[in-house]
Amino acid sequence: MSESQLAALKIDRDRLWRDLHETCQWGKGERWGDGPTDIGMSRLTLSDEDKQARDYFVKTNKDLGCEVKIDAMGNIFAIRPGKNNSAPPTYAGSHLDTQPTGGRYDGILGIHAGLEALKTMRDNDIETEYPTGVINWTNEEGARFPISMVASGVWADAIPLQKAYDLLSVGASPVTQKSELERIGYLGSLPASYAENPIGAHFELHIEQGPILEASGGLIGAVEGVQAYKWFTVSVKGKDCHTGTTDFANRSDALLTAAKLIVHSHDRASEMGCLASTGILNLKPGSTNTVPGYVQFSLDIRSKEDAKVLQLEELLKAEFAKIAGGEKVNGMNTQGTRGRGCTVEWQLDTDSPATKFHKDCIDCVERSAADMIGTENDKKVQRMTSGAGHDRIFVPCRDGVSHNPSEYCSPEDCGNGAQVLFGAMLRYDRLRAGKKS
Amino acid sequence: MSESQLAALKIDRDRLWRDLHETCQWGKGERWGDGPTDIGMSRLTLSDEDKQARDYFVKTNKDLGCEVKIDAMGNIFAIRPGKNNSAPPTYAGSHLDTQPTGGRYDGILGIHAGLEALKTMRDNDIETEYPTGVINWTNEEGARFPISMVASGVWADAIPLQKAYDLLSVGASPVTQKSELERIGYLGSLPASYAENPIGAHFELHIEQGPILEASGGLIGAVEGVQAYKWFTVSVKGKDCHTGTTDFANRSDALLTAAKLIVHSHDRASEMGCLASTGILNLKPGSTNTVPGYVQFSLDIRSKEDAKVLQLEELLKAEFAKIAGGEKVNGMNTQGTRGRGCTVEWQLDTDSPATKFHKDCIDCVERSAADMIGTENDKKVQRMTSGAGHDRIFVPCRDGVSHNPSEYCSPEDCGNGAQVLFGAMLRYDRLRAGKKS
Repeated sequence: MSESQLAALKIDRDRLWRDLHETCQWGKGERWGDGPTDIGMSRLTLSDEDKQARDYFVKTNKDLGCEVKIDAMGNIFAIRPGKNNSAPPTYAGSHLDTQPTGGRYDGILGIHAGLEALKTMRDNDIETEYPTGVINWTNEEGARFPISMVASGVWADAIPLQKAYDLLSVGASPVTQKSELERIGYLGSLPASYAENPIGAHFELHIEQGPILEASGGLIGAVEGVQAYKWFTVSVKGKDCHTGTTDFANRSDALLTAAKLIVHSHDRASEMGCLASTGILNLKPGSTNTVPGYVQFSLDIRSKEDAKVLQLEELLKAEFAKIAGGEKVNGMNTQGTRGRGCTVEWQLDTDSPATKFHKDCIDCVERSAADMIGTENDKKVQRMTSGAGHDRIFVPCRDGVSHNPSEYCSPEDCGNGAQVLFGAMLRYDRLRAGKKS
Repeated sequence: MSESQLAALKIDRDRLWRDLHETCQWGKGERWGDGPTDIGMSRLTLSDEDKQARDYFVKTNKDLGCEVKIDAMGNIFAIRPGKNNSAPPTYAGSHLDTQPTGGRYDGILGIHAGLEALKTMRDNDIETEYPTGVINWTNEEGARFPISMVASGVWADAIPLQKAYDLLSVGASPVTQKSELERIGYLGSLPASYAENPIGAHFELHIEQGPILEASGGLIGAVEGVQAYKWFTVSVKGKDCHTGTTDFANRSDALLTAAKLIVHSHDRASEMGCLASTGILNLKPGSTNTVPGYVQFSLDIRSKEDAKVLQLEELLKAEFAKIAGGEKVNGMNTQGTRGRGCTVEWQLDTDSPATKFHKDCIDCVERSAADMIGTENDKKVQRMTSGAGHDRIFVPCRDGVSHNPSEYCSPEDCGNGAQVLFGAMLRYDRLRAGKKS
């Protein structure tokens, strides 16, 4: 196959759109509009709905003639043979799980674009140099079992298997991640290990989940690397007391303190050009007329640079303790009544350093995008940094909205992304074989 | 009986202590110390444990020869006949329900002191002028069904019966207050109405739930009136988005906004000499890497004066909207990044105006306290305002702590309170009959 033949191959954009939305029947979320696909997703990892989507994924790949392997974290690897099957595959991969109030494109688009790439190879009788494939990673979201990318993390030897197995689900009646893998029948026998089950390359198509491409007229983002982030659980300990009979000076109000810390983390992250966010907050005892004596909240801090994440972490650790003790710090505790103080404890849940992607992969994405768009307008293809912890190819999403039922990626943008993914996989396959990408 | 004979009658302090702690077997909470009674309470209203405590209350009163009546809100009225039974009784009353992480004295002491008063009357063959009795009011705490003093409120015609019946329990799988009354067998046939079921007077012994008596060496507080308060549910609406890919300027962070509002309510209440507290906070969707798009929190504001509560409410209503929109108000929004803003909605849940108690009742408490203490040291008996929404006679509690497992009232203070309650009931009974109190 010549390079111009390669560039002329097209995925089936209608089939991609139809199949993607067909699988959104499993784990339907909130309706946000009148259209047939204007319904969000709530497909928590390892739920019954996730199992249905997984079963579809396995069957579709088997029907395509793929070998399907499941590892000890429930990661599913579907492999389409190439000419030389002694080397690991070039994969497309993403995730079928969603946030509790998520949308139809985050993760799901990446999986379906991978499936569409394999279907297009079949339709065109393409025999690749090496195997190609598609991966569904378990619990990329970290919404139900609160470490994101935990199963790919185990595979990469960044997270111990037992820690991942023992993770408890959030909310009432917690269950372990392992017990849920077992329950839905996706606890595989293959070791979850990059050494035992290597990959040749991994391309992930993903919605940008941010506003940059849309605002600047870009169609494709060629991601150069991933932002660093750390996730913490911060616990504030005060003392329960009656709201009507305890004056401010005699309180140790854990929620008032937590509120100050959340505002302060935002203020400091703003100053330093980082991000800081709290998405979970739980308190005890939970009664209108009782001052909470205990609050736990999540803290997610991010930057393009590892050093800045560390700097922000160290600053906040020092200052949270002072603020909880009643000291004045950067505008905090300058108003109101000083109480008896609270104590603060930090627990590190996830540490994800910044990542730089391999030049060859970035090149394959850019060339594949150029095949589709033409090279005359390079504003349409942009180099970017990923704010989320994965992703290789970005397409725009409306208003930058994600992790929300109304998350939306148009049929055109879905198709563009899948076309670029398909081309990048084929180009990388040729590059590995010593051919021009 | 002469006045000096009356002053010489003593309750049985050991029996009071023993019986009180015996009933704390139903609804045990967290252990906080090594002693046999160093265990908190978690006896939510209309739970199985509350039913067990109610059954004990009914049986004990019947054994004392009392008539027991249950009204449509599950309030239990136990009546010991007097010489003239055509007039309504002089009651002691309080509540057997507790906060989810409550202690052994809030409410429970008031009930047991009432029982001990009736036992002491029986032991001494006292025939009162009019009936006397003891009341257990349903759901005084408002912890499970979130309106405090809701059943006494229905009785007083301040809250419609249907509204009280329809109240949903907080937390997962809500049930109505009426269904729980029915389930535990305490949905009585007597109308919950002061007109149909009047009372002559109502004395409540209660721990102070604050630090004043202890700090000033007081033994008994003679309460003159009750603080005004209002309870609100404040809803903050923003938009869910991904924490890694959405910059601060493009967020509508409902939790960051709620945190500012909680801090601001504290600041304004401090300035105005009022109280403001948040005891409940719920958010959606609840994921570390999703900025919450929706937060609901309780706001409890209090003052001795109705006008000040209203003034604080109006100020906060105006300023919450501005702060949520990103405007600078009293130090809020002066740091950090201005986002896209959130909206705020208020719902009034409870409106409890300030109350002044009747002079005769206050006199009876003071005279009864003087009987016990002697009149030489009036620092030991103090006139006070109640911060909680009920109470007539205060005794100290350690460190002012209440609504906490480690809430503690010593055997001496429990006994002092019960002795003063007993004396006040008898003095009021005589006063009604035209005798010197």
